[in-house]
Amino acid sequence: MKKNAIVAQSGGPSPVINSSLQGIIDACNSWPEHIGHIYAGWHGIEGILLEELIDIAHQSPKEISLLRYTPAAGAIGTCRYKLKDDQVEDYQRIIEVMRAHDVGYFFYIGGNDSMDTPDKVSKLAREEGIELIVTGVPKTIDNDLGDEGFTIIDHTPGYGSAARYWAYLIQNIDEENRGMCVSEPVAVLQAMGRKSGFIPAAARLADPEREMPLQIYVAESGHTLETLAENVNRQLQRSGRCIVVVSEGFDAGSLGEARDGFGHIEYGASQTTVAQVVTNYLNHAGLKARGQTTGQLPGVIQRSTSILASKVDIAEAYEIGKKAVEIGVKEGTGWMATILRKPGSTYVPFLEKVPLPVVANSARHIPLSWITKDGLDVTDDFVHYAKPLIGNDWPEIAIEDGLQRFSRFNVRFIEKKLPPYLPIRFR
Amino acid sequence: MKKNAIVAQSGGPSPVINSSLQGIIDACNSWPEHIGHIYAGWHGIEGILLEELIDIAHQSPKEISLLRYTPAAGAIGTCRYKLKDDQVEDYQRIIEVMRAHDVGYFFYIGGNDSMDTPDKVSKLAREEGIELIVTGVPKTIDNDLGDEGFTIIDHTPGYGSAARYWAYLIQNIDEENRGMCVSEPVAVLQAMGRKSGFIPAAARLADPEREMPLQIYVAESGHTLETLAENVNRQLQRSGRCIVVVSEGFDAGSLGEARDGFGHIEYGASQTTVAQVVTNYLNHAGLKARGQTTGQLPGVIQRSTSILASKVDIAEAYEIGKKAVEIGVKEGTGWMATILRKPGSTYVPFLEKVPLPVVANSARHIPLSWITKDGLDVTDDFVHYAKPLIGNDWPEIAIEDGLQRFSRFNVRFIEKKLPPYLPIRFR
Repeated sequence: MKKNAIVAQSGGPSPVINSSLQGIIDACNSWPEHIGHIYAGWHGIEGILLEELIDIAHQSPKEISLLRYTPAAGAIGTCRYKLKDDQVEDYQRIIEVMRAHDVGYFFYIGGNDSMDTPDKVSKLAREEGIELIVTGVPKTIDNDLGDEGFTIIDHTPGYGSAARYWAYLIQNIDEENRGMCVSEPVAVLQAMGRKSGFIPAAARLADPEREMPLQIYVAESGHTLETLAENVNRQLQRSGRCIVVVSEGFDAGSLGEARDGFGHIEYGASQTTVAQVVTNYLNHAGLKARGQTTGQLPGVIQRSTSILASKVDIAEAYEIGKKAVEIGVKEGTGWMATILRKPGSTYVPFLEKVPLPVVANSARHIPLSWITKDGLDVTDDFVHYAKPLIGNDWPEIAIEDGLQRFSRFNVRFIEKKLPPYLPIRFR
Repeated sequence: MKKNAIVAQSGGPSPVINSSLQGIIDACNSWPEHIGHIYAGWHGIEGILLEELIDIAHQSPKEISLLRYTPAAGAIGTCRYKLKDDQVEDYQRIIEVMRAHDVGYFFYIGGNDSMDTPDKVSKLAREEGIELIVTGVPKTIDNDLGDEGFTIIDHTPGYGSAARYWAYLIQNIDEENRGMCVSEPVAVLQAMGRKSGFIPAAARLADPEREMPLQIYVAESGHTLETLAENVNRQLQRSGRCIVVVSEGFDAGSLGEARDGFGHIEYGASQTTVAQVVTNYLNHAGLKARGQTTGQLPGVIQRSTSILASKVDIAEAYEIGKKAVEIGVKEGTGWMATILRKPGSTYVPFLEKVPLPVVANSARHIPLSWITKDGLDVTDDFVHYAKPLIGNDWPEIAIEDGLQRFSRFNVRFIEKKLPPYLPIRFR
């Protein structure tokens, strides 16, 4: 029986989130006997609650094909709308919207917090006897979804691109710091990833032979500002310069933390940053070299820079989007598409499915065994794990009239069929 | 009469400084009857004072050819060593080193502060009756060298790449902000350029049609934190989101400023930043939209990202390096190579020479007529000026084994011929 589909995104953008969207669209179109219209929730679950839906059929094939190299979440939007168990009205509204638009498939692209939503919607639909197939599509640059044994997911789409950003950034910064060290001997760079160290760890990919004076402080490192400064000064005595990559979740005392819609610390909106605290601490403590420490805060740039996306990541994000549709059509509701890798020294990924309740609100850190004993680096096991994910090539970002040509959707909502609704968190 | 040459760099790196170095090397090699060995001062004038010289003949042709796409100043280093008039010993030492190594040509790549040094060395050599031809090669991402009538130099090599960084960055950030605005409606990004607005202005190149909710606060804008917040909130009421590009030199009150070797404010080493102050001010004042402001501080990343360099800039930096050698050989001492453009609507640049005293310590701001009346934007005249400088293509950065392949010089100093010397500022 033919039903319509809704696709929606949740949580922070990644450079490849649109590639998963494209995979979902292409796959839906390849099951015409099962899936009719494809609608996108404008800004994720908020768009579903508000009945703000975009018809993918109104988008030109060219714009859909451009999704592959369009970073972040500008095409259909994303959000951080938290749906707690007690928001019964919100859940009922979601079911009503699905029913009103004859939706039988719901594809939800998101990270660990976000996977809670499709899980709950899937269960609720089943309870109410509604034919709604809900499938999750993993996405987070943080790579913190799943378990530390990597049995639920090997790596999340988005992570490979964040890792490539850091590998290439540190290569450039090494040229900068090498050239400028007699005046600015220490460059501090703050990486995303909250309390999970996968993103800062990726700086090591810039220098697997350990030739650069690079120190990596993941949140899990056990270091303090004092021991960080000691280590930096030891490096300055050895090398005359030092590149410090520090996690936004590194314990540098109070930051005047802000919180996002999920209740997590929003480091980019806090009153100060780990990079600034570390920079000030080093400049105040004094460097064992002439010159000063400078701080860099790429912030959301690291999750939205198209040219630094990984082609491996782009391709996998697309395939996992397609796989999610196949799982939905063939296996029914309640799964998340996942990517695993075969054991052995060669990188051989494969797609699988995992029950949504297993992933919902799961969280992992970088394995402690991948952090070196001195807490300043990650091991070759990490390099072996992450290196294949960054790929071997530049993505082919189209340029028109000197500018990047990104996908631009026609944001016109389909006709509403329900009375207006104010989501609980907007009240 | 055949003489050796010294090339050295000064001031902050740019993504194309090595391209000028390559142009100088190639041109020196094309005048074998005039120029013998080519030496590079390791970390600029500091390397000359310390007699730390690298022989370019010891570098492989492959590494020299890779300079074109190697960003920042890691190949031969740069510095911020200030040479004041009263540092007589330092100047004498420079002359001694030139004499000891039979140097007849001195090519100095630098910005407005740096051009003071070759000017003084040129004059001193003439006074002492030494055959030393000194030629300046302009370089600064800030584009603040020269005059506001653009008669001394149209634009400095390095600026086109910083402009491309900002154009492409803002395109990516627009995707990010469009997608994420229901949670993070305001993205603040701090641009370099000190008190001169050419770099933040380049954000406009991302959106010459003015479709994005983009506000640009150059230091010369006349805005305060209060009026900035008012404008951002007006934008939020219109568009639901806002991208704020703010100059590091914008007046946001005290930053606990640090100073560099030239005595200028070193924004990256200060105790806080304009981006942080603006972010905190907006979050404290309250936004007329749900969610929060986030701050981004690309810092030195904007002057060292190879893939975001402009191919036009790379090519011009190379040609201006070659031109400097030609000027030195044909016209004698005391000039800086410069680039001008022909009047008219098509971009036609040409190379010229300008006396060093004219450029030494010159400084320009963005013309006030290029800032819009509301102080939130730059005019189409600016777009017309800057657009041709960012080029139309990605540079061809070689990738080997998944990583960028940059030039790596063999840093082995040539045999010293003089007793050790401690530069005045190191004492």
